Order: sequence, then structure tokens, then C-alpha cells
Amino acid sequence: MKRLDNTRVKKTDARKHTLVHVKNAVFGEGHFTVIAGPCAVENLEQALAAAKAVEKAGAKVFRASLFKPRTSPYTFQGIGPEGIEILKLIKQETRLLIETEILSPSHLRLLAEHVDLLRIGSRNMDNFDLLKEVGKAGKPVILKRNMSATLEEFLLAAEYLLLEGNEQAILCERGIRTFETYTRNTLDILAVPAVKELSHLPIIVDPSHSTGMSKFVASASKAALAAGADGLIIEVHPHPEKALSDGHQSLNLHEFQTLMDELRELARVLKKKM
Amino acid sequence: MKRLDNTRVKKTDARKHTLVHVKNAVFGEGHFTVIAGPCAVENLEQALAAAKAVEKAGAKVFRASLFKPRTSPYTFQGIGPEGIEILKLIKQETRLLIETEILSPSHLRLLAEHVDLLRIGSRNMDNFDLLKEVGKAGKPVILKRNMSATLEEFLLAAEYLLLEGNEQAILCERGIRTFETYTRNTLDILAVPAVKELSHLPIIVDPSHSTGMSKFVASASKAALAAGADGLIIEVHPHPEKALSDGHQSLNLHEFQTLMDELRELARVLKKKM
Amino acid sequence: MKRLDNTRVKKTDARKHTLVHVKNAVFGEGHFTVIAGPCAVENLEQALAAAKAVEKAGAKVFRASLFKPRTSPYTFQGIGPEGIEILKLIKQETRLLIETEILSPSHLRLLAEHVDLLRIGSRNMDNFDLLKEVGKAGKPVILKRNMSATLEEFLLAAEYLLLEGNEQAILCERGIRTFETYTRNTLDILAVPAVKELSHLPIIVDPSHSTGMSKFVASASKAALAAGADGLIIEVHPHPEKALSDGHQSLNLHEFQTLMDELRELARVLKKKM
Amino acid sequence: MKRLDNTRVKKTDARKHTLVHVKNAVFGEGHFTVIAGPCAVENLEQALAAAKAVEKAGAKVFRASLFKPRTSPYTFQGIGPEGIEILKLIKQETRLLIETEILSPSHLRLLAEHVDLLRIGSRNMDNFDLLKEVGKAGKPVILKRNMSATLEEFLLAAEYLLLEGNEQAILCERGIRTFETYTRNTLDILAVPAVKELSHLPIIVDPSHSTGMSKFVASASKAALAAGADGLIIEVHPHPEKALSDGHQSLNLHEFQTLMDELRELARVLKKKM
Repeated sequence: MKRLDNTRVKKTDARKHTLVHVKNAVFGEGHFTVIAGPCAVENLEQALAAAKAVEKAGAKVFRASLFKPRTSPYTFQGIGPEGIEILKLIKQETRLLIETEILSPSHLRLLAEHVDLLRIGSRNMDNFDLLKEVGKAGKPVILKRNMSATLEEFLLAAEYLLLEGNEQAILCERGIRTFETYTRNTLDILAVPAVKELSHLPIIVDPSHSTGMSKFVASASKAALAAGADGLIIEVHPHPEKALSDGHQSLNLHEFQTLMDELRELARVLKKKM
Repeated sequence: MKRLDNTRVKKTDARKHTLVHVKNAVFGEGHFTVIAGPCAVENLEQALAAAKAVEKAGAKVFRASLFKPRTSPYTFQGIGPEGIEILKLIKQETRLLIETEILSPSHLRLLAEHVDLLRIGSRNMDNFDLLKEVGKAGKPVILKRNMSATLEEFLLAAEYLLLEGNEQAILCERGIRTFETYTRNTLDILAVPAVKELSHLPIIVDPSHSTGMSKFVASASKAALAAGADGLIIEVHPHPEKALSDGHQSLNLHEFQTLMDELRELARVLKKKM
Repeated sequence: MKRLDNTRVKKTDARKHTLVHVKNAVFGEGHFTVIAGPCAVENLEQALAAAKAVEKAGAKVFRASLFKPRTSPYTFQGIGPEGIEILKLIKQETRLLIETEILSPSHLRLLAEHVDLLRIGSRNMDNFDLLKEVGKAGKPVILKRNMSATLEEFLLAAEYLLLEGNEQAILCERGIRTFETYTRNTLDILAVPAVKELSHLPIIVDPSHSTGMSKFVASASKAALAAGADGLIIEVHPHPEKALSDGHQSLNLHEFQTLMDELRELARVLKKKM
Repeated sequence: MKRLDNTRVKKTDARKHTLVHVKNAVFGEGHFTVIAGPCAVENLEQALAAAKAVEKAGAKVFRASLFKPRTSPYTFQGIGPEGIEILKLIKQETRLLIETEILSPSHLRLLAEHVDLLRIGSRNMDNFDLLKEVGKAGKPVILKRNMSATLEEFLLAAEYLLLEGNEQAILCERGIRTFETYTRNTLDILAVPAVKELSHLPIIVDPSHSTGMSKFVASASKAALAAGADGLIIEVHPHPEKALSDGHQSLNLHEFQTLMDELRELARVLKKKM
């Protein structure tokens, strides 16, 4: 990939693997770190129940979106800034780190103050203005692959972050758009070894958006671990059937606990710290 | 398409065809309106040469991007705000309307003051923040289809504009991403009749980005007209071989003149005003 | 496209355009020839009604499949060899040429005796055994693009025919498989100018399979003509609502007549004999 | 998937998992069986070296194609019928079962006599004539997914086999065609749990064709096992750099041994017999 020559994301002999440290969580070679939580924070009760359960099961980071980009303007758009108070309470009640999606540079100050890890969603992978602003903020960030981005475009989007000085970037494969529509997207599992060959940055997998169905999340998660991924970001909800968004692809608390137990066994054989 | 029920973009018996009037240019059923100009404004000489030639050939609107979203941070990012002075001069020297891409809400005030028609590019079709702000601005706007957006997603993105009160929206098919890579994208020519069946909004075609090669632009343009499109947005450059971006897909001034002559003949048979 | 070097399908200065003559029908540069008829021959009445109508409207070749490749073994598989008698009657009653699909080398002798033009369907584009046998038969042949074939693969499949000595090959674009499923396939309209640039062989378009909906067939047909195609193969049925296969994408007799009238006007402007 | 209703491939309460027994090899729930060998049999020395090494490493079936379908007629088309003598010798020298691709019904008698397991390649998934003939032969068969087939089409192709009475069918995911071309295909890893949900038939994965690069074969293989696949079919060559076909995606003997060791460890944790 010629366009990667002389970029900062490119793997080199001098820089084979970057470890991204987010307080006590580590993303990168030799580690397998799980982020889990609901698609969207809906209210304190839901968020806290999810948080306590995912912490107990072994997740280190809580996924907690306050702002949701939605295809239709008529669907739930997220709880918004008032969710910050909920996040504060979760930090008091658990030892989880907080991860959330950032949709706009105008939210940057607020979110950077209260969360540990920012997420740039698939739809914003090409939002270069946002990339630059987040790059300047110097906060650890997850960059999700756009559903039609080639691997080269994905890595060049990360370059916008690194160029602004933010090297704490974690890539996330979340499924690409293909002719097969039985699953919501097609999980491009080979993106995992490919990114590890091309770049020094860690890569995690989102088994929830790539499958779109909770019944396939366990298979996708185990495949990601076996393929060499550095972690997962999984949607978990105390009551998926009542979720305001993405309920069909969310694990319930029990399913998540079972999956984590299976992953730990696999991680041991694969010599990954989890 | 269920998700289009009760939306404002949907075609209804009461609202079959919206005509978008941008001063003396009309987009919609029965008209065929051509927007042309360079991928990016580079300097006064280049822009003015292009403008005079496209006006002479029959274009009504000048395409003139000042800000460019680029896959790699190391490629030309556009001339930026200083290009406004060039646009002013073009308005003095020609009777062309001015169309330009908007990348960020922060540019809205500046651009809305000096241009006639805003463009939301493919990469920003899902940038809902930008859609809402442009919707509020009440300026005529072209919304380009994301290269991986279904038609339903494309129309729902336009709904964000209409919902904010902006009904002067023009849709633009610019090619989708498929396994075929000989052409830069795959021009989804059937999007033209499909959008006309589903929505009352006008739809134009970008033959430059869909083909990625100037030698195919004439075929794509004629096909678009024959398929029922309401217009085109074409990249034209006085010296494509020296262009700072997209030179390989830009027509030179002579090619553009020839194409316009052919299109006029076709438009007459197809009973479209051009 | 490197793999086309030294092939017989490649366009060269010495061989720019092949004209394929099938009796009084000509396929190639400067001509626009229409093949029309039902997806499948169902019975004499249906076939004859379709044949007389398409002849009257100006089609030169009758599309008449006896054997149908079907995704599910439980759907109509074609009338089979007994349909030959129907084809004979059509030849008596009209001056149409007969075109039909060949699924297996075992049908070659029978079909070659009674039809004027063979068709290798999309699913068989990679059936190299069939290609070789049809190549040897020396009968004019239409080769349809596989729905996931690149242009290079498409042309290399034609090379199997030419290599066996059959140079009377006509290529057919019939839509490719992409993420967009509102239309049955995505008509790759740019395949028309691309094939004309790369190869000397004629290329026609199938507007019925590419759209999958009769309401879009006219747009697709006009776009094909405007893009430079050398002809069309269209599904027409006297009673589409009763068709045993592909009724939803078949034009009725009146719609076909109207389309042909429109195409003739366009062809005149485009300087194509029709 | 409605079209699967009342089919024989569909999973039912009465028929959850079919175990396909090919002599001492078992394909299906609870087992993980590896087929390995060169893309094509080139000569006795190459084939025998590969066979002995894959047997030693733990493969139970030898992959040994004599006939090769090739995109271009100018590339190596396989050793042909004379390769049968080589297969006989391998059966004498090892205890491996033999698997080979069948391209044409005309080869059926010869191949059925000398091999244990037939393979219908991706390009022939829609070759319904071949499916029917192989269905009648009653020999265990691997059916590979066409690179543009939906899961429903894939299962309906298998229905052609089952309908002719052959229930010893093994499905094989080998990558689908998408816009991402860094890897040869996109391994649709979710096809594994999806097929297991929809059908009672076993499913294996081809990590060689899906990746197209030997360096990614180990990741793809481990992911397949973790996702629930019942086995693998892997290309292995004693000297990949000298292979007449697919050398770039073939493992050498040492790499294969290492991979098998890793897979055995994983299989133990996943409670699969290997």
C-alpha cells in the first residue's frame, strides 16, 4: 500500500506494536481487553445494572453512548448531555473506565472531561474535521472503520489523529457492507491480521454491529480473539427486548457472563492477558 | 420502503415533483441543468478560465470547491477561505451561479453569504450535525449519496434537511462502491428512476466521480440524461494534466463543449429543457 | 489490464470493432439491435403472441429459453426439448431469428440445429467446459457477465470462445451484485464504454435482469443506448402477471411497443441503425 | 428465509446435525477435520511429499485437484486424468483419504472410482447439471459457496444434491467478493454460525482462497475453528514458491505443522475432536 509510505500509522521495524494504556486497561499485542455496555445510556437504572454486571464478568471499560447518529431522524437520538450525571455515578459505583461516542467537535470539551476513551463511529471515519479536533485533544480514542472503507482508507483516517499528535489510537473493525444481508454487515475478520501486518496500532472488533444479531455475537467474539484481535467492544443490555436501540444485537447479562468465561479459556491457550 | 412512510421526502399524489429554483437555474422534472467546474479552485487564472468556458458551453452553475475532504492528510486540502475573493470575481465576470462543498458547520456563514448552492459531499451524507445546520440555513443544497448508502438511507439523510425546513434539496448519485474497480466507482444508473419513483426531489448525476476517468464521462452523462436525471455535476479543468486534484477524471474545455452539444440534441428528443 | 495482453478479445489498432452478423441482424458499432421475448417459452400461444408483437415493434431476434437455471430446484425449470416444435412454428409465422440459452454441452447439437444465436447465462460464465464446447460449435453466441465477475474476468471468459475459433461472440452486461438490493442487481452501465475501450467485441445490455422490475426497464434501456451499447435483450410477455418466471420484470406488449418507439428516436440522434 | 421452507437442507428439531462419515473421517458437530494438500497435483514427487507431510501433521484427507478451472485459458489447467496414477500411489503410501474437484459430469465415473470425497468448486455452485449428476452419484461431496452467493442461494444449491438422494454433503465457505481487495476475498466468518443455525449440514472453511495470502492462513484457520466450523480445507505445498498455481496462498510443510499444533490446542478448549 503505497499511500502508507512515510505515514505514522505504518508498522516499521522500530515500531512494531503500540500499547495504548487507558489507566489500568491496556490495548495492544499480548492483551485482550473487553469494552461492554448498552448501545445507548437510557437511564440510571439501566446503565448501572449493565455496568455492574459487565464489571463482574470481567470487562474493564464501560461503553456508554449519550449521542447516537441515526439513519432516520425519527428514531431515538440519545439521552444527550444530561447523561453525564449517570456516567459520574457509574464511576462512583464501579471501577470501570468510561468509553463514549463523540459526534461533533462541539461536544469535545464536555466529553473529554468525563470519559476515559472517546469513540469515533463508522459514519464519522471520514469526518476529517472531527478527526483533527479529537487528534488535538490528546485523549485515547477508538476509530471505527467505515462500512465501505478499504483498509488503506481506514489507516489513513487514523493518520489524521496521529498527525495531530494523538498516538493513543485504537482501530476497530465493525463489519463492512456487502451483498450478503442475512447478517447486518459482513465481519471482515481478516482485517485483524491485515491491520496487524500493516500498522503498529492495536485493533479490536465490534461483534455486535458486525453481526446485528445477538445469537451470532459469541461466534464473532471468539473468532476475533482467535484471529489475533486485541479486544472487543460488545453491546450488553439488562433487558435487550426493551432497549431503545440495537436490542436485537445486544447480549443480556447472563449471555455476556457466559461468553466472558469462554473467552478467558481461549485467551489462556492463545497467551493473551485478559 | 417502510421507513419512508410519513416522511417528507416521500413522493405522494399531492407532491409528485419538486422544482428547486436557484435564481435562474431550475432543477426538477422537465429540466436538465448542468453544473460544471474544477474539482477545486486552485487560483484565479484556472478558475476564471474554467468558468468562462463552461458558461459559454451552456452550464448554468459553476462548481467551485474551496475545502476538500481528502483520504490522506498529505494531499491538497483546498485553497480555503481565501478562495472567496476568486468566487466574487467570477460572479463579476460571468453570469454563473456558484456551487461549493461545505465540510463543516463552522464554514456555513461564510459560504452561505457568497455562494448560491451548497453541496454536502458523499463522505458527509451521514454527518447528521452538518445536515441539520445546513437544513436550518435554508440555502439550496445538493446532497450526494454516500458510496455505501442504500437508497433508503440516502433519502432518510435528505429527510434531515427537509425536517429543518429546507425543501430546496437536490439529490446526487455519484457512484457506489462495489467489487469492480476498473472504474473508480460503479455508477448506479438505476438510482435515477428509483429516486424519481420514491421521492419528489430532483436527482442529478456526477459522471466524474462515478467513472473516475475522463474518457467515460461522456457515456455516463448521456446515460444519466437518458435514464431521466434532472442534471449533471461535471468536473472541468482548463488543464486536467496539471490539476491539483482529480485531473484524470476532469474534462478539458473542448471536451466539455463537445459533450454539451451532444447533450442538447438528446435533451430535445427527451423533451427536457436545457 | 495485464492479463488481456496477447489475447484475442483485446482491442487493437488492427481490430477495433467486430461486427457479428446473425443472418440479417447485425451486432456491433453503428447498430442497435433488439432481442426480445419471454423469460421462458411456456406454450405455443404465449410464445407466438409474444413473437408477433415483438416483431411488429421492431425486434429482430426472439428470446426463447427452453431450459432455465433456477436457484431453487422447486421452481419452473423450463419446458425442455419439446419447446423445439414451438420455435419451429415461430420461424414459420414470423421472420424473427431465434435466440436461446444453452445450459449444457449435451443440448448443443439440438439447439445449434434449431436456433440462430446461443446464450451462455450469467451463472455459466465460468463454466469453462461449456464455453469450450460452444466455442467449437461455431454458432453466434451471447456471453452474459457473471454477477460477480470483474470486467477482466468477463473478457477472459470470452477468450475461451475465441480461442476455440468462435469469433461471433457478443458480450452482455446484465447487472452486478452489490449491497443495493432495491433493484434486483446494479446495472453497471459503465461496463458498456469500458468493454468498448478494452475489446473489439460488441456489447449489449439486459435491462430486465439488471433492474428486476418492469417499471425501470425503459430507463435502463435508454441509458444503455445512450452509453453506447450495441443492443438490448429484453423480457416481454403477453401477460406478465401470469408468467411462470420473471413476470415482475417483463414488459407487456404495449409497454414494449412504446419503448421501441422511444428508442428509435434516440437512436436517430445517436446515429445508430435500428 | 422463506425459500428454505420445506427443503431438505433446513435444520429442524428432528434433524439438527448431520454427521458426514467419509471412511474414518467425520465432518459435523463435535469434530474438526482437516483436508490439506496442494492446489493442484503437479507430479508424483510434489504430491507425495505434500501427502506424507500433511498426514504426519494430522490431516485426514488429501486435497488433490487434477482438473483446474482457470479464469484465463492461458494458465495451467491441471494435470488431467493421468494424475489418477499419482493418487493411487498416495493411497498406497499413506492412509489419507483423497478429495478432488469435479468440473464436469463426464469425469464423474473416473473420479468416483478413485477418490473418497468430491468437491464442487465455487464457480460451479450454480452448475445445476453438475449438481444433479453428483447428487445421483451418492459420493460424499463438498459444495463450495460461490463468491457472490447469498447464504440462501448457497443452501438451495445444496438442495439440488439432497434432492437427488445424496445427503453426504459438506458446505464450504471460501470467501465472498467485496470492495476490499487487499485480501483475495473477504472471509465471511459469520457464514459459519449462520449455516449452523439454518441447516443441519456440516460447514468447513477454506482459509487459503479466502485470504489469498499464506501469511493470513493461520489467523483465518483459528478464527474458523473458534467460530464453530467443522473443519478446514487448506492449500499446502512442499515448495510454494515453485507451485504451478496458488503458490502465494499455500503454506509450506513446516507452517502447516505449526498451524496444526496450534489448532489442536484450541480444539481441546473448544471441545472438538481433532
